[in-house]
Amino acid sequence: MSVTSKFDSVTLETRANVYFDGKCVSHSFILADGTRKSVGVVLPAALTFGTGAPEIMECVGGACRVRLAGEAEWRDVVAGESFDVPGNSSFDIEVAGEPFHYICHYG
Amino acid sequence: MSVTSKFDSVTLETRANVYFDGKCVSHSFILADGTRKSVGVVLPAALTFGTGAPEIMECVGGACRVRLAGEAEWRDVVAGESFDVPGNSSFDIEVAGEPFHYICHYG
Repeated sequence: MSVTSKFDSVTLETRANVYFDGKCVSHSFILADGTRKSVGVVLPAALTFGTGAPEIMECVGGACRVRLAGEAEWRDVVAGESFDVPGNSSFDIEVAGEPFHYICHYG
Repeated sequence: MSVTSKFDSVTLETRANVYFDGKCVSHSFILADGTRKSVGVVLPAALTFGTGAPEIMECVGGACRVRLAGEAEWRDVVAGESFDVPGNSSFDIEVAGEPFHYICHYG
């Protein structure tokens, strides 16, 4: 599976987004067409994220286990794979060993 | 003091750089002219970074205390301020409370 390793011609915001005391850190950027995304990393932890807009979380390194709100099953996600999260929802994520590197696509 | 809040027209690498078990996380990017930089954050911690190329660390949020290799004095650095680190050297950095957000300019 191919992994998105870079984005060209973007506007990058210099201040990081820090969540859960640094267990998750991301940087926001904007594509030439105005689309907003972020790149980030989740360190080894068990966290629950809420969503406003729907999100597609694309793994570009490491791995995680994820369970969407209302679902019983956990799913393993590795580099090159993605998982979709509905808007106004949440997901549980567990990272162990290598950090989970991701791109967050909104909307 | 003005703070560099964004960079336009850059190539952004999607995989984060994770140092000291996540106490420092950064993302690398490349300007249109090929210049390589990174944006990152240091969480509350006391760390020592080594340098290969000389670096200019520009604070864009939060604050830190820094002491260059071979120097006795610590210096406080806040948003809008920078500190220069010679190449093939090191610096001690202490962050307390709010994380230290930075741009690393190489060379």
